[in-house]
Amino acid sequence: MPTPTLAVVNCSQLVTLAGARRPRCGAELRELAIIEDGAMLLSGDTIERVGTRAEIESMVGGGCEVVDAGGRVCLPGFVDAHTHPVFAGTRADEFERRAAGATYQEIAAAGGGIRATVRRTREATEDELVVASRRFREWFLRGGTTTVEAKSGYGLSVDDELKMLRAIGRLNDEGALRYVPTFLGAHDFPEEYRARREEYVALVVEEMLPRVVGEGLAEFCDVFCEARVFTVEESRRILAAARSRGLGLRVHADQLSLSGGALLAAELKTSTADHLEHTDAAGVAALKAADVQPVLLPGSVYALGSSRYPAAREMIGAGLAVVLATDFNPGSSPTPSMTMVLSLASTQMKMTPAEAITAATVNAAYSLGRGRELGSLEATKRADFVIHDCADYRDLAYFFGVEHALETYVGGRLAFSRRGATKTQHGV
Amino acid sequence: MPTPTLAVVNCSQLVTLAGARRPRCGAELRELAIIEDGAMLLSGDTIERVGTRAEIESMVGGGCEVVDAGGRVCLPGFVDAHTHPVFAGTRADEFERRAAGATYQEIAAAGGGIRATVRRTREATEDELVVASRRFREWFLRGGTTTVEAKSGYGLSVDDELKMLRAIGRLNDEGALRYVPTFLGAHDFPEEYRARREEYVALVVEEMLPRVVGEGLAEFCDVFCEARVFTVEESRRILAAARSRGLGLRVHADQLSLSGGALLAAELKTSTADHLEHTDAAGVAALKAADVQPVLLPGSVYALGSSRYPAAREMIGAGLAVVLATDFNPGSSPTPSMTMVLSLASTQMKMTPAEAITAATVNAAYSLGRGRELGSLEATKRADFVIHDCADYRDLAYFFGVEHALETYVGGRLAFSRRGATKTQHGV
Repeated sequence: MPTPTLAVVNCSQLVTLAGARRPRCGAELRELAIIEDGAMLLSGDTIERVGTRAEIESMVGGGCEVVDAGGRVCLPGFVDAHTHPVFAGTRADEFERRAAGATYQEIAAAGGGIRATVRRTREATEDELVVASRRFREWFLRGGTTTVEAKSGYGLSVDDELKMLRAIGRLNDEGALRYVPTFLGAHDFPEEYRARREEYVALVVEEMLPRVVGEGLAEFCDVFCEARVFTVEESRRILAAARSRGLGLRVHADQLSLSGGALLAAELKTSTADHLEHTDAAGVAALKAADVQPVLLPGSVYALGSSRYPAAREMIGAGLAVVLATDFNPGSSPTPSMTMVLSLASTQMKMTPAEAITAATVNAAYSLGRGRELGSLEATKRADFVIHDCADYRDLAYFFGVEHALETYVGGRLAFSRRGATKTQHGV
Repeated sequence: MPTPTLAVVNCSQLVTLAGARRPRCGAELRELAIIEDGAMLLSGDTIERVGTRAEIESMVGGGCEVVDAGGRVCLPGFVDAHTHPVFAGTRADEFERRAAGATYQEIAAAGGGIRATVRRTREATEDELVVASRRFREWFLRGGTTTVEAKSGYGLSVDDELKMLRAIGRLNDEGALRYVPTFLGAHDFPEEYRARREEYVALVVEEMLPRVVGEGLAEFCDVFCEARVFTVEESRRILAAARSRGLGLRVHADQLSLSGGALLAAELKTSTADHLEHTDAAGVAALKAADVQPVLLPGSVYALGSSRYPAAREMIGAGLAVVLATDFNPGSSPTPSMTMVLSLASTQMKMTPAEAITAATVNAAYSLGRGRELGSLEATKRADFVIHDCADYRDLAYFFGVEHALETYVGGRLAFSRRGATKTQHGV
């Protein structure tokens, strides 16, 4: 074993999620593989050993830093497998109009919605996008997230899509948070191509994809497959082209209507099918047969004021390895918080806290092709972990609207700490 | 003017909520009375002046500390007018059982629910309750709340109710957060009185109330008026007795069914009627005629997985001065976050951010009899204010699952600060 550089001790529960080394359907409590009074030994950015405090402390030598978790829980960092974290401006104005009664459709018709963000993102420089996104990176880290899948899709031109993906690459290189880049040129039709759909699909396939792949800017390709966005035919063409160029595949499927997205995902055996609010039993069965992971995004259901959550229990019952993610974006899901998503999963979709945490860590890592490196606390994996300020892991889903993370580590390095944040002049 | 001791400058928006010095129905945007590039001058615990930066800076002399808000918004601290912040243990176990499909009723029948918290709270000492509640106090302050109404109601015996109220008094005396104490001996029937309802009501009226009032432990009395809890008759008797002893009145009304709570509140002209999920148009009209303020608690609707939110728009339309609160408690609403409640108000109840902020500050202060001291940023009021880490006040309702407060001041003194919290080893 390499020389240990850091030991984490005194964890009320070290929630390892070790065990079967593959994504889980459902996840019973025992699959969290909790070590009580747990501890962990790292060497550099790698986990060397997990065990009880007594086991680990005997291995701590001179020069090994010790972090005392103070009787708190320690979990793998959350892996947020569906986000849109790079954009210019916010849509607080539109949020206000929706609260005052305007529908999403009315706002889109007035030039709002994704199109408003596209206009502002096109106007922004790559530098400006990086700076704006650091605000959200801090939120992710404060929420205990250590990896985000990050989509383009607010550029919708060759140059602007590349600009977004380069910004994502720079954010990843800064090292505080891991970004897995996804090309989403087919997020919407841009204004100038509304009447020329086929030409835009050709632009995505023939110009954007080669550049994106040529410059190594993305690992996945995603398409917004939906009745009035990209049809099943158009989506198939784009995804097939992306696959032929070596990208992994993800699909926005059946969010607003039963539009065939889940069946297309099954046909193409994509890594994930995301949203699935309107997917029926046939769609669920097809996903299972094709081994596609569902990525459920309850934050957007909540924020749009809908009560039509995806059928998580049916999917778990069918044996699907469900993933939970924030869908962080400025329109339909303005939350960066995976603990908020755990709360939504338990209260609105009847997932147990154990199921929700499995979906937010190890299952999510597998959906991004990172299952052997991330998502659980096991020897040889990257040391991405979070000490949360509670003694019981269930508190993360139970107490909502609170940032639970006390310290977030990415690759063995401290990326966020709340210790010492609360100063008072009251002496209490 | 007394010598200024502290100036707050460089607020993108100083959201004063000044203007009409009474609670508002609805609250249009102009009623927030926002000062752009705003600033504020304090002397000790009191606001001396609000204005533009130029106006205020000219008054800053030597010895006056200056806080630079850095182009962020500054609001009055939230006034959370309905909380249960003192209890022993949590109910994470019960939360897990509900996520797995058990109903609230099944859990109550198995000895869970309020009764579980009553057992644990009776076993705890006053010291233990104070210590446990400090965790939640930190959460309130981190969320930008500076005053909480705090109910007893997990003791349900003379000694245990007094113990809870004394704990609330000690927390208030510690000074970091303001507590307004409410006696809620009629929160439920304790186990030992299930078959002797009338005797318990007599205990509340004849023993608890005189002791509570005699020791000066509460400002308000509240009753859980509900079909299988306290009937309208029982509630009327308790509330009338409380009024005769000089307490203000609040009522848990029509939460689980249309049980007559709102009509009783109107009959007695209580300060507030709280919950109101099932109140009908006649109830709304009665509240308006009697000038009772509705206290809406969307956190509990959300956490119970219901979609039956109170009819906020109808109440605002009827001219009622709506209040929003967390209902923080370990069972039905485990959130201390007023910004989470703003999000729920806008996304689930279609209140604009301006209406929601009015309901969470100045309207709430009036409902607690503190309208002349708290809830807005105006000369002569207490200096309870919060610098939030955004430039637009609407972000507080829009981005959810995030703690927005950067610094929280209570009576001119710093009670929470996040500045310097984020340490990274990444240098970014």
